[in-house]
Amino acid sequence: VADVAVLGASGYAGAIASSLIWRHPFFSLKHVTARSESGALLDEIHPRTRVPLLLEDWDPDVQGEVDAALVCWPHGVSAPAVAELRERGVRVVDLSADFRLRDRDTYEDWYGPHGAPDLFGAAVYGLPELYREQIPGADLVANPGCYPTAALLGLAPLARAGAIKDVVIDAKSGVSGAGRSLAHNTHYVEADENMTPYKVERHRHTPEIEQELAVLGATLPITFTPHLVPLAQGELVSAYVTPAIELGEGELADLYHEAYEGEPWVEVKLGPPGVLEVRETNYCRISVHRDDRTGRVLVFSAIDNLWKGAASQAVQNLNLMFGRDESEGLG
Amino acid sequence: VADVAVLGASGYAGAIASSLIWRHPFFSLKHVTARSESGALLDEIHPRTRVPLLLEDWDPDVQGEVDAALVCWPHGVSAPAVAELRERGVRVVDLSADFRLRDRDTYEDWYGPHGAPDLFGAAVYGLPELYREQIPGADLVANPGCYPTAALLGLAPLARAGAIKDVVIDAKSGVSGAGRSLAHNTHYVEADENMTPYKVERHRHTPEIEQELAVLGATLPITFTPHLVPLAQGELVSAYVTPAIELGEGELADLYHEAYEGEPWVEVKLGPPGVLEVRETNYCRISVHRDDRTGRVLVFSAIDNLWKGAASQAVQNLNLMFGRDESEGLG
Amino acid sequence: VADVAVLGASGYAGAIASSLIWRHPFFSLKHVTARSESGALLDEIHPRTRVPLLLEDWDPDVQGEVDAALVCWPHGVSAPAVAELRERGVRVVDLSADFRLRDRDTYEDWYGPHGAPDLFGAAVYGLPELYREQIPGADLVANPGCYPTAALLGLAPLARAGAIKDVVIDAKSGVSGAGRSLAHNTHYVEADENMTPYKVERHRHTPEIEQELAVLGATLPITFTPHLVPLAQGELVSAYVTPAIELGEGELADLYHEAYEGEPWVEVKLGPPGVLEVRETNYCRISVHRDDRTGRVLVFSAIDNLWKGAASQAVQNLNLMFGRDESEGLG
Amino acid sequence: VADVAVLGASGYAGAIASSLIWRHPFFSLKHVTARSESGALLDEIHPRTRVPLLLEDWDPDVQGEVDAALVCWPHGVSAPAVAELRERGVRVVDLSADFRLRDRDTYEDWYGPHGAPDLFGAAVYGLPELYREQIPGADLVANPGCYPTAALLGLAPLARAGAIKDVVIDAKSGVSGAGRSLAHNTHYVEADENMTPYKVERHRHTPEIEQELAVLGATLPITFTPHLVPLAQGELVSAYVTPAIELGEGELADLYHEAYEGEPWVEVKLGPPGVLEVRETNYCRISVHRDDRTGRVLVFSAIDNLWKGAASQAVQNLNLMFGRDESEGLG
Repeated sequence: VADVAVLGASGYAGAIASSLIWRHPFFSLKHVTARSESGALLDEIHPRTRVPLLLEDWDPDVQGEVDAALVCWPHGVSAPAVAELRERGVRVVDLSADFRLRDRDTYEDWYGPHGAPDLFGAAVYGLPELYREQIPGADLVANPGCYPTAALLGLAPLARAGAIKDVVIDAKSGVSGAGRSLAHNTHYVEADENMTPYKVERHRHTPEIEQELAVLGATLPITFTPHLVPLAQGELVSAYVTPAIELGEGELADLYHEAYEGEPWVEVKLGPPGVLEVRETNYCRISVHRDDRTGRVLVFSAIDNLWKGAASQAVQNLNLMFGRDESEGLG
Repeated sequence: VADVAVLGASGYAGAIASSLIWRHPFFSLKHVTARSESGALLDEIHPRTRVPLLLEDWDPDVQGEVDAALVCWPHGVSAPAVAELRERGVRVVDLSADFRLRDRDTYEDWYGPHGAPDLFGAAVYGLPELYREQIPGADLVANPGCYPTAALLGLAPLARAGAIKDVVIDAKSGVSGAGRSLAHNTHYVEADENMTPYKVERHRHTPEIEQELAVLGATLPITFTPHLVPLAQGELVSAYVTPAIELGEGELADLYHEAYEGEPWVEVKLGPPGVLEVRETNYCRISVHRDDRTGRVLVFSAIDNLWKGAASQAVQNLNLMFGRDESEGLG
Repeated sequence: VADVAVLGASGYAGAIASSLIWRHPFFSLKHVTARSESGALLDEIHPRTRVPLLLEDWDPDVQGEVDAALVCWPHGVSAPAVAELRERGVRVVDLSADFRLRDRDTYEDWYGPHGAPDLFGAAVYGLPELYREQIPGADLVANPGCYPTAALLGLAPLARAGAIKDVVIDAKSGVSGAGRSLAHNTHYVEADENMTPYKVERHRHTPEIEQELAVLGATLPITFTPHLVPLAQGELVSAYVTPAIELGEGELADLYHEAYEGEPWVEVKLGPPGVLEVRETNYCRISVHRDDRTGRVLVFSAIDNLWKGAASQAVQNLNLMFGRDESEGLG
Repeated sequence: VADVAVLGASGYAGAIASSLIWRHPFFSLKHVTARSESGALLDEIHPRTRVPLLLEDWDPDVQGEVDAALVCWPHGVSAPAVAELRERGVRVVDLSADFRLRDRDTYEDWYGPHGAPDLFGAAVYGLPELYREQIPGADLVANPGCYPTAALLGLAPLARAGAIKDVVIDAKSGVSGAGRSLAHNTHYVEADENMTPYKVERHRHTPEIEQELAVLGATLPITFTPHLVPLAQGELVSAYVTPAIELGEGELADLYHEAYEGEPWVEVKLGPPGVLEVRETNYCRISVHRDDRTGRVLVFSAIDNLWKGAASQAVQNLNLMFGRDESEGLG
């Protein structure tokens, strides 16, 4: 058994992560923290978790007494806490963006000054399907963003095949992707029956996707536009690839089936996925199509943004770090 | 006053069209028809219309006694009825796809045999912002598809400027776009909290968009993918244009403002539109952006698929055909 | 033409009221105010209004220069502003609860100290179907709460007939009923797919309903429980009446048809109403049923909480106050 | 291990039941049937189940070869199949209404002729919290209706205390309660943003609730009105009790806590429940309140209509029938 703390448990991803750890056969949930709601029980704030633990203030001397921590705080705030946890020997999965990028200038261009420069570059990128070998030995894992998770799983087979000349990524996310902070665009009355692009040209997941595509062999600037759609949880990436090489329907199908054969949490399907099919699961469901009229390759990739896009993927990483079956406790 | 019949008034677009004509200062709604629900009152089937007319069976000798008809039937079924109406001198706005395409082979490739070959090619394409001069003299107007309406209004300024080298159109529609016919993918339980691409590579609005882009000066095959999203009415087109010429942010803004200055139903905005902003209106709301990282031009275009994408645009066309102010009765 | 100011135009009811006045044939919208968003254009905050007026800070010397005002502020805040407007001779429809109650103790029990005691009791209760004679002469009209509007229109015929011995009112409202202020229970992710009773035993519309039932002849304490349901606009009242006198189905139907014959905005129907049928209208739609097994009388009453329950009813009152047709400008 | 068949697995409750049995530690899912979709894989029709079994036609010689069956067919159709299964010695949980009522005349009044008269009265009513002792020995268990489940768990403590003089039950259900059959009132466009009472005075769960209340000690006719609300899964019962005896807040709280202490699937809470809190669980969450103004007792009871109201309760019953922990496989 390993003791775990979840920092930022009152957010949507943090609450689900807490719930998964609470019911996990190997991990034991010892602490949950919240910045503004400490003193309440987690299951008062998030009844669905049914985790009757008191939300605590963040105190490295208290929560630092565990074996592992999931840090579910926003970028900027996360890095210093991660540094304190690491100093105490706690193994960390960080769900913020603070440790995902490898290039310091890129980080600062998109996010501003880094909160723990000494640790910059120290993390393994926690997309198990791409970094399964490196994660077990890591003490710090940077859990991917929700859009990068869906986009990279969707594009990896093409990127590795050298088949991406250009790509447009049109992404759609449920409202929980905007977090639990209060704002008018997530008020029910303004989000309901609405749908809109947001952060056009400047969503911070752009450099993260580009970085990992480059690692896979596709170095190019991408066009990435997220949209807010009226549902709670679920994310769909529609990727439009101008191929660098000629690939027929059959070759595409083979490429994807080979890439994901044996993967427990990636499902390659003939027809395009719906986000409800992966709701509240760790699955990523993908389809690939060739548009004969234009030669483009179309990839659709669906996840639950709070599960595979955040909380359950964090637990998948934690399982790998502690030598457990990576699917343990994921239902 | 001109007498009007609405054929197919029990569908979603037909019901709204009936409601608009019923309250119109110039037109007088004389007949409404329905194939399977004749004998009921329209406002029993569609209470929001508050149109207390009996739904009739289609009978050319009955409904043919009017000055104008809006035909809200599916393609294939529509053409023969339009032919019968035209023979009786009735001026028609056809909301189906039967008279939108100019090339017979293209029609047959995508839709099968045409139901009134003698009339093929006889219609004016009823997008008032592009064909305002031709519509008044027309006896048969082909009301555009919902996706073509949003896509063409969004892309027309670029197409006319010779600025479109390539374009990916990712479109999202509310569930009413699938019509009132019963099917599991429109059952509340299966559409709610879901979102999925559909008719990948083969949506029939593709050749219609290509045809009209070519008229505007952009002859190219397009990639067009619609998605179903969980809201009742509303449609968003996200168009990703690889530009043929260099256009800065300022030039783009100028291009769009010049194109739509004075247009009563097109709104060009700085920020991306939300579909709720145009709900139950005849407006199309557009924003245009230049992605400096990739050089792409992004256009977002929002309409209500049942209003500007169908019923209210049909009334706008009817207004023009009868020499009325094109906005009359549109609220 | 009469000049109008809308105070609190950035709230949901205020925005709709502004939009209705902006397009009204007789009234002219001169000022719109907002407490925290002044300086912005109303149509930036609420694009659907398409009212391009600047939101101003409240200044009695500025907005007091009009003929009439709609005050869309919360109770407590509203009364002093109403007093200042009245001092300047402005005729006011107040949408808050500040002037609805006739008994000062009751007001203070439920709401605390009153903000303009000199004006207490000076208002006519603005339910036109009940007070049509008094409203034209009033300088201050207290616009009813949304639940009282639906409940009283539903119960008035029974109350006047002396037929209410006891009543349970189970009410359900869309999320806009909770206002535009930010809170977790109106965050999309927490309201979506949820439904819950709220303010059990202590919703402030209780004494308002009791007061007006007593005026109609039914003096009794009521049980009133509102519920939050996942839709934006719409309110349904289900009233379960233990009858004081025996009334058959036919007598009930007659009672309701006589009561509302000729009423422009009340629709009595055989089958139970759905809130979508009255969405974005000033209609109240009612059905009445006798449960033969228990002898109870069931009344269902549906309105749009932001329209007949607030903004459009305020305009209906304003029409009456200025001697206009009460339906003018209500679509 | 016991082999199980699910009849009617393509409906919403049947699909969830199949999914629960498929992952159950003790039961083994051998057959799934569907009337109109046989030949397809269950996970093609219901991807979320991830049950890759072929849907079969109903054949007693095939599906009769199991130890137990869950019959998820509508009333009338269910009884003959249950009879055939029982003849072959299969132990059955029937999710239809066919075996819930104890009085044959009442059954025929509400449902028409019974499809297996010889078995009428042979079933134990499968509400484990009330019949936990009888279920283990039963070969036929009648799984309760969704509304009776929520209503009876909410009212049982009061009924047993002789405290119910009269009761009004106002119930609200998500759209899945209407089943998967296609109809306009469950079309997304007509259910979305809507809410309406249905089957006023004549919902068939009425006699079932009355029967079981009588068993508990409260013999009275009830007023029961269900409403359709725009969410997929979730059911809320608001019960308004005129008490037969005086009970203070504290006594009420004690009554409920004593009644449900140790119950694994009933949660008594201080504040009123939201249906999202029990979504996709076997929990029933209850609060009880005393309205001091009227003396009424208010009870709110929330379940997931497809889980505790159907599929998971069926598995809970099956667990009891086979001597397993009643919570096994319920997550």
